[in-house]
Amino acid sequence: MSVLILGSIALDTVKTPIEERSDLLGGSASYAAAAASFFSPVKLVGIVGSDFPQSEFDFWRGRKIDIEGVQRAEGKTFRWSGEYSWDLNTRETRSVALNVFENFQPKLPASYRKTDFVLLANIAPSLQSHVLDQMERPRFVVADTMDLWIETTRSDLDTLLPRVDLLILNDSEAREMTKETSLIKAGRAIRKFGPRYVAIKKGEHGALLFGDQNEFFSCGAYPLEDIHDPTGAGDTFAGGIAGYLAGTVSRVHFTDLRKAMIYGSVLASFAVEDFSLDRLRNLSMAEIEQRYETFKLMSQFEVSA
Amino acid sequence: MSVLILGSIALDTVKTPIEERSDLLGGSASYAAAAASFFSPVKLVGIVGSDFPQSEFDFWRGRKIDIEGVQRAEGKTFRWSGEYSWDLNTRETRSVALNVFENFQPKLPASYRKTDFVLLANIAPSLQSHVLDQMERPRFVVADTMDLWIETTRSDLDTLLPRVDLLILNDSEAREMTKETSLIKAGRAIRKFGPRYVAIKKGEHGALLFGDQNEFFSCGAYPLEDIHDPTGAGDTFAGGIAGYLAGTVSRVHFTDLRKAMIYGSVLASFAVEDFSLDRLRNLSMAEIEQRYETFKLMSQFEVSA
Repeated sequence: MSVLILGSIALDTVKTPIEERSDLLGGSASYAAAAASFFSPVKLVGIVGSDFPQSEFDFWRGRKIDIEGVQRAEGKTFRWSGEYSWDLNTRETRSVALNVFENFQPKLPASYRKTDFVLLANIAPSLQSHVLDQMERPRFVVADTMDLWIETTRSDLDTLLPRVDLLILNDSEAREMTKETSLIKAGRAIRKFGPRYVAIKKGEHGALLFGDQNEFFSCGAYPLEDIHDPTGAGDTFAGGIAGYLAGTVSRVHFTDLRKAMIYGSVLASFAVEDFSLDRLRNLSMAEIEQRYETFKLMSQFEVSA
Repeated sequence: MSVLILGSIALDTVKTPIEERSDLLGGSASYAAAAASFFSPVKLVGIVGSDFPQSEFDFWRGRKIDIEGVQRAEGKTFRWSGEYSWDLNTRETRSVALNVFENFQPKLPASYRKTDFVLLANIAPSLQSHVLDQMERPRFVVADTMDLWIETTRSDLDTLLPRVDLLILNDSEAREMTKETSLIKAGRAIRKFGPRYVAIKKGEHGALLFGDQNEFFSCGAYPLEDIHDPTGAGDTFAGGIAGYLAGTVSRVHFTDLRKAMIYGSVLASFAVEDFSLDRLRNLSMAEIEQRYETFKLMSQFEVSA
């Protein structure tokens, strides 16, 4: 089955301690769509300006990413610029220019409305709700969010959450949202806001997944040694999860979500190995499966010698 | 097989945001021995003063913990007092009185010298080496350490490390020891100092285990909701590992270490549920096995629905 992916499409300028690059493809939807496309067809929803490179449209088409839902507006594409600290663990936003994104009102093509799986990648929760309003009973809705929306548009987020099957957020956001210091308590508390499942990302420490009662999964992170650009890791994680689910199952069970989290982690571990989406562009399914197996080996503890 | 455990034996005063308690059994060897004793006979090495309660000797005897190697000196037992922050994540030492510990020179009884498994629990590395000097070719040596020894007695530690099979330390200590920010790089770098295996504890995020080349294990932490006293969690972890190995295998393979890490985590997860060693005192093997199974369920991702 297909997965509809809504989010930002951007041209990024990224500065790391080693290198600075500009006009890179970025944005939550760009990363998520590239990751999801390894597992299932994607219907992309977003907006770009007249400066957006034709080559990226060609990249999407080559990946079976449907771009009928990508609006092209007069003006400049959304631009973001950020700089990473020496250890790549923190970053500072240097500038944001919303440009055509400022008046973005997602409008779904008719062919998108019946899509079974939806990923509302990181974007204002009002836009996430607006897309859901236009859909006909999707089977499974994944939503990503961030501190900005928790702090500035909390009521929009609260309206969205009961419509979400799986909410993804990071550890500090989970704590901020619930005022709980324990991530276990935070994960359970967020489920009460509506989402049936909650995934809390812990960066280099992996992720936790919460479902009903005894449904709990703790997933390690792939041990990375050479990170070149952490941008989009979370978006790639979310895209890998939603794509894996859409491409693999018709009804989602907790077991499927466990595997989906691993595939999301695997995709994210590749994404950070190069700038922008460059590693995802030349990644093969065989490499993904190989790293999935490595993940299994490094996390299981009942194996024969 | 038995495990010899060297470390501190203390009477602690612990203050948490909820409660303060004094004259509690503490010290690295006390926690480690209680944890190890679930899996194998223990030979304890340490020192206590004349104020040390008889009831604790009785507790050890009831647990098949051999106390021939526990010296009893005139004077007061080593005392430590600490206070935890509101979220129990950090603590401050309020006072330390070495007392009889100040002139402690461990001398092994003849019956201890051929013990196959050794845990050098957290204590000055010169004392750890001194105990090894008195032993006849132990099969497997586990050593725990801490920031204090890395900062103040680094050359003693460097002398010890080539004699250690498994070194256990926490994430900040591993970074301090190697000046590497990546824990993956740190783990590999520490192996070059001598230990064949290195376990890096990450608190609520679990632990990493490094061996030869492709030997790598990432172990989650048990999701704790109600922590009452974090004191001794690391010592219990080390004791669980050493005890499990001594009680289960004659030659240690990486596979055994994976399971040992889980049992260590399980024991530590119980230890923090009550003050001092109180939870370890009334813990049953059935409870340990049950939590081990829960651990398996929460960390595996290839299971049938």
